[in-house]
Amino acid sequence: MSDNGVLIILSGPSGSGKDTVLNRLVEADENVKVSVSMTTREKRDGEIDGIHYYFVSREYFEKKISENRMLEYAEYAKNYYGTPAEPVDEMLSRGKSVILKIEVQGAEKIRNRYDNVISIFLMPPSMRVLEERLRGRGSEDEETVQHRLFIAREEIRRAYEYDYVVFNDTVENAVNCIEAIITAERHKIDRNKNIISEVINNV
Amino acid sequence: MSDNGVLIILSGPSGSGKDTVLNRLVEADENVKVSVSMTTREKRDGEIDGIHYYFVSREYFEKKISENRMLEYAEYAKNYYGTPAEPVDEMLSRGKSVILKIEVQGAEKIRNRYDNVISIFLMPPSMRVLEERLRGRGSEDEETVQHRLFIAREEIRRAYEYDYVVFNDTVENAVNCIEAIITAERHKIDRNKNIISEVINNV
Repeated sequence: MSDNGVLIILSGPSGSGKDTVLNRLVEADENVKVSVSMTTREKRDGEIDGIHYYFVSREYFEKKISENRMLEYAEYAKNYYGTPAEPVDEMLSRGKSVILKIEVQGAEKIRNRYDNVISIFLMPPSMRVLEERLRGRGSEDEETVQHRLFIAREEIRRAYEYDYVVFNDTVENAVNCIEAIITAERHKIDRNKNIISEVINNV
Repeated sequence: MSDNGVLIILSGPSGSGKDTVLNRLVEADENVKVSVSMTTREKRDGEIDGIHYYFVSREYFEKKISENRMLEYAEYAKNYYGTPAEPVDEMLSRGKSVILKIEVQGAEKIRNRYDNVISIFLMPPSMRVLEERLRGRGSEDEETVQHRLFIAREEIRRAYEYDYVVFNDTVENAVNCIEAIITAERHKIDRNKNIISEVINNV
């Protein structure tokens, strides 16, 4: 089927379970990869360069920005965070499907840069479940929980900007559904333009 | 997810294995139905009304045409063959996904009538395999085989008019792939417009 992998944006509010779903997806399918972000912040104990983040200097990060080699980036608390283009392009060219975990605000930049990118919004089954998950973390005070719920509602209102919506009612359902979306997308005729002449001409 | 089922056009050349794939799909998933065609030709031994065809009078068929209740139809050897709208609409409204096995020529009419219809082209893995399958039937003479191969090439050239292309290398692969396409389509945001307000408003 299609030579190039499928590029997928995955967004969803804090507490929607993006990391759990992504870890399971990567375990289940060796042809699905999750892009690693780049950051200028200090490496913390237990973090591995190239796995959790690419840890780089501020100078290096700004060079990548100026060369237009960052798919998207932002600055928080005086550190840069972003998605470098090279590893994504390299994986796509090897036929891997690549998932970018991107904030709703960053998704637009990716769509403008790549043809054929698809976007999935990971939806909590309800606001009640989302609230339980946020409280379940135990580390946030009431004000933080309420703020995150407010942000979550704002993000959910923008779900219509995405191609697909997947409910994270159970991790298994969400993973199966995203795998089906990737399979379907690989069989889009737009991604298989050469198929027709190959079948007709190769006896 | 989406309330209404997905309407799917499946086309493919003679020998591409449409019937085998469809039978397996319907067995595997009770939410997938295949539409039954209507005809004015005589019922043959072993055929069951409502399973193989709806057998009707010429008068009845022409009434359906005049009422615009045929999704598509054609006349072969002085008999009408076509797809009646009512059973399709009824199954869709019950949330079933409905597959219409339609000739390449008839697909256009369906696309004009329904929003959100998707189309899948079932592709033989190669012309050589297609030729083997056509000869394997044993009942056709050389002239008929060559004519069918000619028609098959013409149909394959129109595969770019479809949304998806699925190779029938093995029945299992083809069935899994069509199931993935149906799952993906049900999660398109366009088919789930009410989801956002439901999640935000239902606590």
